[in-house]
Amino acid sequence: MRPNIITISREYGSGGRDIGREVAQKLGIDFYDSELVKEAAIESGLQLEVVEELEECRNATLFSTEDRLDSNTLQDKMYLAQSNAIKQFAQKGPCVIVGRAANHVLAGRDDCLHVFVYSHMDHRVRRVAERLGLTEEEARRKIEKVDQARAAYYHYYTGEEWGLARNYHISLDSGFLGVVGCAKTILNKVPPAWKPHEVRAC
Amino acid sequence: MRPNIITISREYGSGGRDIGREVAQKLGIDFYDSELVKEAAIESGLQLEVVEELEECRNATLFSTEDRLDSNTLQDKMYLAQSNAIKQFAQKGPCVIVGRAANHVLAGRDDCLHVFVYSHMDHRVRRVAERLGLTEEEARRKIEKVDQARAAYYHYYTGEEWGLARNYHISLDSGFLGVVGCAKTILNKVPPAWKPHEVRAC
Repeated sequence: MRPNIITISREYGSGGRDIGREVAQKLGIDFYDSELVKEAAIESGLQLEVVEELEECRNATLFSTEDRLDSNTLQDKMYLAQSNAIKQFAQKGPCVIVGRAANHVLAGRDDCLHVFVYSHMDHRVRRVAERLGLTEEEARRKIEKVDQARAAYYHYYTGEEWGLARNYHISLDSGFLGVVGCAKTILNKVPPAWKPHEVRAC
Repeated sequence: MRPNIITISREYGSGGRDIGREVAQKLGIDFYDSELVKEAAIESGLQLEVVEELEECRNATLFSTEDRLDSNTLQDKMYLAQSNAIKQFAQKGPCVIVGRAANHVLAGRDDCLHVFVYSHMDHRVRRVAERLGLTEEEARRKIEKVDQARAAYYHYYTGEEWGLARNYHISLDSGFLGVVGCAKTILNKVPPAWKPHEVRAC
């Protein structure tokens, strides 16, 4: 099997986005992350302001069982719009897609490499505090909140627990391996035939 | 950090044991798997027959909450004996240890690389049926039974769900990467300084 698409799911603050961008740059292929939301909004006709508001307040309480019974909620429309965007990006050609349960959305394709990136809390607290200029306590609270939202989102739309190794081809601890180490591991899984000639040494 | 010990946890039939042996051979270091049980039995003074009988009937029902309240059950004594054996093996020098929640037992050491190996059911059914001469249905039932026992064992003694990526440094899908591919990935994570000069090309 020759992968065309690399999806990266990640715990908040683990550097999964940086790893994805590094991999995409090295391979010279497209990279998609939060831009998906805007693309999805535009494609589906949802008001951009509404999508951004939903993004802001996205948390565990949004994904209750009662919501699940009504497939016409704004959340569900947004999920469908994002899923369509992910499928369209994947159709365009080789790319890296970060977040939004892309591994689940593209589960029907056999040309994907699905990756999960995580690291222990202390490592993530240091990264988030430094990047956003927060105290360690503020960073910890933000991480817990975002992870809770991602876990709820993933569970709600896939029925699976977030972070189970079996839902990915490779899972990597970025605190142990480092961002560069994780990128190298992913690049090593991409057959040479797929790599453009201009790929820089990693 | 320079790892001295590689632990491998694995779904039944995923080839985790073969991967561990391959890695140990390539690195020229010791390899431990089911021998742990006998070693533990001998070290702790437990009757070998009793240990083997426990191994045979090890299943989910053995690890109930009620059992947990009595730390003097034979299962707990066996777990402690095995844990001591794992710690002693790790003390001896660089090695690969497969199974028995070794990642949890050695959690206090910072010189370990903890790996989880898994693959989808169809891949494992084919492997187990071929290796043991079973029908696919028999292989599937055996896999489900052994995995259930391993999950219960892991949960009982660690309090964690079996197969969560965050409990390992790397998790690998052997159905996707292959046994050799998994071994290569692990070997790539071992700093060159650790590799003996006589390591063969992988």
